[in-house]
Amino acid sequence: MDLIVKIGGSIQKDEKDYELIVEKIRKYSQKNGKLIVVTSAIKNVTNDLINATINIDNSPDIASEIYERHVKLLSKLADGKEFENAFKDLSRLSDELFRVTWSIRVLDEVTPRVKDYILSFGERMATVLLSAVLRSNGIEAEGISTPPLITDDNYGEANVIEELSKKEIDNIIKNSKVNVIVLPGFIGRTKQGKYTTLGRGGSDYTATLIGKLVRAREVRLVTEVPGIMTGDPKKFSNAKTIPRLSLEEAIELSQLGAKRLHPRTFDPVFNIDMKVIVESLYEDGFTVINGECEKSDGLKGISYLDNMKLITVESTKIVGKIGSAAKITSEAKEAGVNIVSISQPASETTIQLAVDSSSVNRLLERLEGLKGTLVKNIEVNDISIVGIVGCGIRKKEISTKVISIAAKYDPLAIARGISNVSLTFIVNKEEGENLSKELHEVIVNG
Amino acid sequence: MDLIVKIGGSIQKDEKDYELIVEKIRKYSQKNGKLIVVTSAIKNVTNDLINATINIDNSPDIASEIYERHVKLLSKLADGKEFENAFKDLSRLSDELFRVTWSIRVLDEVTPRVKDYILSFGERMATVLLSAVLRSNGIEAEGISTPPLITDDNYGEANVIEELSKKEIDNIIKNSKVNVIVLPGFIGRTKQGKYTTLGRGGSDYTATLIGKLVRAREVRLVTEVPGIMTGDPKKFSNAKTIPRLSLEEAIELSQLGAKRLHPRTFDPVFNIDMKVIVESLYEDGFTVINGECEKSDGLKGISYLDNMKLITVESTKIVGKIGSAAKITSEAKEAGVNIVSISQPASETTIQLAVDSSSVNRLLERLEGLKGTLVKNIEVNDISIVGIVGCGIRKKEISTKVISIAAKYDPLAIARGISNVSLTFIVNKEEGENLSKELHEVIVNG
Amino acid sequence: MDLIVKIGGSIQKDEKDYELIVEKIRKYSQKNGKLIVVTSAIKNVTNDLINATINIDNSPDIASEIYERHVKLLSKLADGKEFENAFKDLSRLSDELFRVTWSIRVLDEVTPRVKDYILSFGERMATVLLSAVLRSNGIEAEGISTPPLITDDNYGEANVIEELSKKEIDNIIKNSKVNVIVLPGFIGRTKQGKYTTLGRGGSDYTATLIGKLVRAREVRLVTEVPGIMTGDPKKFSNAKTIPRLSLEEAIELSQLGAKRLHPRTFDPVFNIDMKVIVESLYEDGFTVINGECEKSDGLKGISYLDNMKLITVESTKIVGKIGSAAKITSEAKEAGVNIVSISQPASETTIQLAVDSSSVNRLLERLEGLKGTLVKNIEVNDISIVGIVGCGIRKKEISTKVISIAAKYDPLAIARGISNVSLTFIVNKEEGENLSKELHEVIVNG
Amino acid sequence: MDLIVKIGGSIQKDEKDYELIVEKIRKYSQKNGKLIVVTSAIKNVTNDLINATINIDNSPDIASEIYERHVKLLSKLADGKEFENAFKDLSRLSDELFRVTWSIRVLDEVTPRVKDYILSFGERMATVLLSAVLRSNGIEAEGISTPPLITDDNYGEANVIEELSKKEIDNIIKNSKVNVIVLPGFIGRTKQGKYTTLGRGGSDYTATLIGKLVRAREVRLVTEVPGIMTGDPKKFSNAKTIPRLSLEEAIELSQLGAKRLHPRTFDPVFNIDMKVIVESLYEDGFTVINGECEKSDGLKGISYLDNMKLITVESTKIVGKIGSAAKITSEAKEAGVNIVSISQPASETTIQLAVDSSSVNRLLERLEGLKGTLVKNIEVNDISIVGIVGCGIRKKEISTKVISIAAKYDPLAIARGISNVSLTFIVNKEEGENLSKELHEVIVNG
Repeated sequence: MDLIVKIGGSIQKDEKDYELIVEKIRKYSQKNGKLIVVTSAIKNVTNDLINATINIDNSPDIASEIYERHVKLLSKLADGKEFENAFKDLSRLSDELFRVTWSIRVLDEVTPRVKDYILSFGERMATVLLSAVLRSNGIEAEGISTPPLITDDNYGEANVIEELSKKEIDNIIKNSKVNVIVLPGFIGRTKQGKYTTLGRGGSDYTATLIGKLVRAREVRLVTEVPGIMTGDPKKFSNAKTIPRLSLEEAIELSQLGAKRLHPRTFDPVFNIDMKVIVESLYEDGFTVINGECEKSDGLKGISYLDNMKLITVESTKIVGKIGSAAKITSEAKEAGVNIVSISQPASETTIQLAVDSSSVNRLLERLEGLKGTLVKNIEVNDISIVGIVGCGIRKKEISTKVISIAAKYDPLAIARGISNVSLTFIVNKEEGENLSKELHEVIVNG
Repeated sequence: MDLIVKIGGSIQKDEKDYELIVEKIRKYSQKNGKLIVVTSAIKNVTNDLINATINIDNSPDIASEIYERHVKLLSKLADGKEFENAFKDLSRLSDELFRVTWSIRVLDEVTPRVKDYILSFGERMATVLLSAVLRSNGIEAEGISTPPLITDDNYGEANVIEELSKKEIDNIIKNSKVNVIVLPGFIGRTKQGKYTTLGRGGSDYTATLIGKLVRAREVRLVTEVPGIMTGDPKKFSNAKTIPRLSLEEAIELSQLGAKRLHPRTFDPVFNIDMKVIVESLYEDGFTVINGECEKSDGLKGISYLDNMKLITVESTKIVGKIGSAAKITSEAKEAGVNIVSISQPASETTIQLAVDSSSVNRLLERLEGLKGTLVKNIEVNDISIVGIVGCGIRKKEISTKVISIAAKYDPLAIARGISNVSLTFIVNKEEGENLSKELHEVIVNG
Repeated sequence: MDLIVKIGGSIQKDEKDYELIVEKIRKYSQKNGKLIVVTSAIKNVTNDLINATINIDNSPDIASEIYERHVKLLSKLADGKEFENAFKDLSRLSDELFRVTWSIRVLDEVTPRVKDYILSFGERMATVLLSAVLRSNGIEAEGISTPPLITDDNYGEANVIEELSKKEIDNIIKNSKVNVIVLPGFIGRTKQGKYTTLGRGGSDYTATLIGKLVRAREVRLVTEVPGIMTGDPKKFSNAKTIPRLSLEEAIELSQLGAKRLHPRTFDPVFNIDMKVIVESLYEDGFTVINGECEKSDGLKGISYLDNMKLITVESTKIVGKIGSAAKITSEAKEAGVNIVSISQPASETTIQLAVDSSSVNRLLERLEGLKGTLVKNIEVNDISIVGIVGCGIRKKEISTKVISIAAKYDPLAIARGISNVSLTFIVNKEEGENLSKELHEVIVNG
Repeated sequence: MDLIVKIGGSIQKDEKDYELIVEKIRKYSQKNGKLIVVTSAIKNVTNDLINATINIDNSPDIASEIYERHVKLLSKLADGKEFENAFKDLSRLSDELFRVTWSIRVLDEVTPRVKDYILSFGERMATVLLSAVLRSNGIEAEGISTPPLITDDNYGEANVIEELSKKEIDNIIKNSKVNVIVLPGFIGRTKQGKYTTLGRGGSDYTATLIGKLVRAREVRLVTEVPGIMTGDPKKFSNAKTIPRLSLEEAIELSQLGAKRLHPRTFDPVFNIDMKVIVESLYEDGFTVINGECEKSDGLKGISYLDNMKLITVESTKIVGKIGSAAKITSEAKEAGVNIVSISQPASETTIQLAVDSSSVNRLLERLEGLKGTLVKNIEVNDISIVGIVGCGIRKKEISTKVISIAAKYDPLAIARGISNVSLTFIVNKEEGENLSKELHEVIVNG
């Protein structure tokens, strides 16, 4: 199996989308022969299902609505026997989902296991729909809505047991007589057959992981944007697609950049020779991700978080007190607050934590509790975090240029990232936009 | 009581030193009337006493040698009745110390309480010596070798109970009929009368704390260097004394700068109106420390740590994992390793810890233990940490200039310190010297 | 409200039972005017409902079967409008129960909250049935199937919040226009309206607690036996009803005696003046329980546990080792093993634990783990535990007589119970029957 | 090495004692050839040394006084070269002790290690004295004041490392050319050569342990009483020596009986064939301890603790609450209170703890803290604990007789001890004396 194609949920919204998907898969199938398609739940369905676990009273209605949306698409895109069979499958799944939503309404309770069960319907229905549409369009395709990934029972963020999963997928491939196998992304199941979700990284991660298990040459993540871009096009009018990224660059850009890939997507790719290609359903551009830095690499892209807070915890007592960082970071942990950046400068009189604005209050409450003992003063400032990514940063002339630009914006902190392919700048909130724009110009126009 | 004068140990080494000390105190006494002198143990004595607690078998010999050193100085610097009385006091203390050292040799054991007991003799003897020398030179002085600071029993780093200590000092002042009261620095005693040491910050901290308790206007720290300098004169040939520092600047420079003051020295000074003056026994220059940043303040001084390691802990799992920083910093805590600087850049794929070269192995051992779970890869690099301090950093044109200079040296990280009066640069070891020199030039020559 | 009558589940099995119940309540109502009836779930229903939470696949069938049983009884015992209304209510409850059982089957999961929800149907249905039957027989009765007891959310063993519960019951009484209010025993609800169960002590405890809250004069526990008996009639052919027991005696007999009342039943009765009467639906005898020992009190009853193990943990190290008992008892706690009796004789060389045969292996496993450290040897013996209860034990001649009898059976241990109204004998298993018989003879024939 | 003779401290008080000791050892040496004598510190010395660690200021005086006492005895009992050598050894030890006591006075502190060091002088001096006296009387004896037992560093209650200790003793025996080797009891030393004490069981335990290590046939514990007696002769005028005890009987009697042997004394004797003989220096009688119960064994002795408290912790909540015993016993542990006897009768409504009067308040304070949660009521009663020991208790007619006697004294609890060779009775304080007398009569007169 050479190729895995992952079809995102945001590009499964209407007939036109499916026509494009059909043509894309037809093209890849003609070129590659056998391939695996990993599908997300269709547009908005995962959100609606999450909603069903919260607004329990409405959950049967939400279930009906989701069913109808799938059937409507199916009726337009499939016919004859294909329609009939898929309709039966969707109805069976809808029945099951309806029973579950009805049950949680009766019991007024959703356990983590049941939440994953409910979420599983999104990808399972999408698998039925997509495979039927492909067959209706003359592509020999088979949809297997039972997820092949076997996981532990850590519901909400289940861990894949690779050995068992590989056996499942190998079996599927062995038994399949068609070219295109459609599998659900994002979900797995325990050895006992309970549905789980893989959590962070979603279907992209499923695709690269299956790619690794079947030793694919390429994993294509098909999405609405033409690859990974130099910056968010909404913010930078001249943003362009980046043709190639090393793995390190991709990880650095993945979380903060314009296209939200989860860095975990690249976990299965380390140390194996597999290309990940991010491409658009609608446009031509694409980004190839693989391998390490190359000599010619310069600056690639900008990331920009503009709603952050910088908490400065000041205390002369921090000086020389081994363990004050441990104390403060574990307070953050207990408050469930993700620290985006910590820095304790060499003079040791202060610790600075950058956190998202939404979680700042939870952390402050706890830090206030340390006043009088460890903490002398706490200051909170609005900041932006601007990152620039590219293997070129390893070159002195490039990094000097970048830092000199940043210097003009009065940065609070500057740091290099993993493998020395990124520089991150913490600046006052109001400086963020201009700094990011100036850096973006450097990328685009040199 | 307007003035506290602290006489350091490194400037109590020979007759010439004491002549200068006498003249200095005479001058201040004539100007101020009553004053308190806080004395350290004389040169090398504290180290010798620590040695006595380690080389237990030699400890009585060390005690004898210390006694002889004091008596020799006394015999040269005092005479007649002053000599006689002080000789008696020193002999009494020496007897006591001899008994203690003999006892630890008999028992082959030094508890933390006994260690503090032994260390107390340094300052107690110095108090006897210095006060006798002053009197012999016609200054009305009284030495009180029992420390007035009352502390808890946290031997080795006892905490001062300010209320009780204030009563003691007030009593001493009330009962004293002379102008100059000589008190021991660094040591205290529990309510039960056991000797303790104050740990970090030593006699400087004692001086500023007594200054606070008696509401002094000025605390003069007399030492071998003419104030705090722009950089270590051994490294920067054109280093100069800094005339004034704000408290924030002083704290930032205190630990890393040329003259090693402990930042804790300034703890008692916050929020009260008291000047701390660092001056030389030998030369004219001095540095006045008090108050906050002023408009005219520019760049003040350079700090430079050149034997550091940067540990980069890499893990794609760190991404979004709340608590990985807490885990890693608490490993450092358990290993007893002081983290000089932490930084976790915004992309969250790595944590960087700067630690002293001497403690790096202890930490690495523990981090290796996390491999396979939290930690994917660990890299260690030789680095230097260069800091530049000055309220001027708050001005955009100055910080831009400084950062632009640093940019040329390929910095791994840049951070601002407390109150925005310092910038710290982590650079590769080999860049440290040139960066620090270029920055020092900016301070000295603009 | 003077009187609370609790109608047990084992006496709600057929028409004849209900005829007797109707007559009993009619009688009490005529005599007392207003009264509260607390009802258990009808015979076997609680067990069936527990079964429904275990055999999830069959749970809807079990629900149907329970519904049918209630309707069948109703059809025989009520008619006209009473039948119609109660039938509607039962059907509504059955519907709800059916939905719940169906939901747990769909979700394949029963949380503690849902288990309590399911169990609640037993008492709620019984309330509907019993009140309808009473009305059909001309008694002005009202059934309130929503439990008045407000509890915390400690599902399975919820704690009653007395203040809130009192308000609920006072309201019910104030708003009720009829003489007989039928309320469900055993169950409560949280402030959020979720059903809970009270756990240990069941409906008896509900009855005495409601009695306390409404300051009732009498609580009558109607059951299948004519009061508390001198011994289990199956074992002692001449066993007789005990006319009166002090509270202390009742507590001692409650757990081990012939009629299994839970000692918690008497918790609400302490320090208030309320009689608890245990009586039979079928026979005349009854036992009055209240107050303290009286002068004339002799021996009252026998308890007899014949399937126990005595674990002897031997270690010369136990000697003088403070805390060995703590260690061993906490092992038992962690193993979830209830220690019926511990004794560590004065020579301190051994600890003896009496536990039920069913749990002995779990404890032994853990104690074996202590071998080599704390434990030198472990012996296990089959024992019986025979208790004799009565205020008379406080009289020397009686206790001497009892102990002298026991002496003949080679007792391993003898102990007095709370308030000195019981003596407990640990004997070898084979001695238990004869000892208990001989002691029972003393009670019955003096 | 067939024989170990332990010479107690209470029988080393004056010349007459030593004459008797010399004759005893001469006799055993003539009969056995080689033997090891284990000596305690001479009369009162251990107490005086403990006192020296408490009254630190007087400790050098105490040291002198102890030295003088040994020299005085030596001068009367040895002469010529024997006197001279032993005097030198004692003076050397006294010097060392003097230095230590002087050191603790200087440092005003005694650590556990130093306390053991100080205590070690008692046995070390006794070894010198006793061996010199033996030699002066023509017995070929050698005193080795360095303890042969190697222990861990658990000062105050060090654990013997048997393997290393055996090597030491084997070496001593191999290198010794004389018949009688005198060794110090009670003390050991770490591998680093620091002195330790063995804690509980003292020199008796040292003797039996050395007996075990050298596979001795007999260990003779020479003391002031003619063996173990049926009861305390001060309390029972017709008390007699018991000729033989099984090990089980000895352990039961050891702690509570007239002669205070520590049960730990018998630890080394289990499972090996070694007789322990308790004999008097002054009188003829003796008790042989070894082996198991024999058929002819009847009742052997009485123990009697008359200053005890019975704490009754009452709570209806205890019922069925697994772990309440664990909670209460661990409170006792934390309070440092030794529970002599616990009993939780089968009805589970109460826990009874017997503790010594001296420690009752510490425990009560903690139990009061549980009121409101676990504890409903606490009662404290004055009790006596009377025990009767003898293999005969295994015979039904004997145990029936004993229990029937006890029954007359209104016992609160009766329990059998380890191996079924004792019965313990908890009775009200005022009953203790009569019960113990009546039981003692049964032993003496049948």
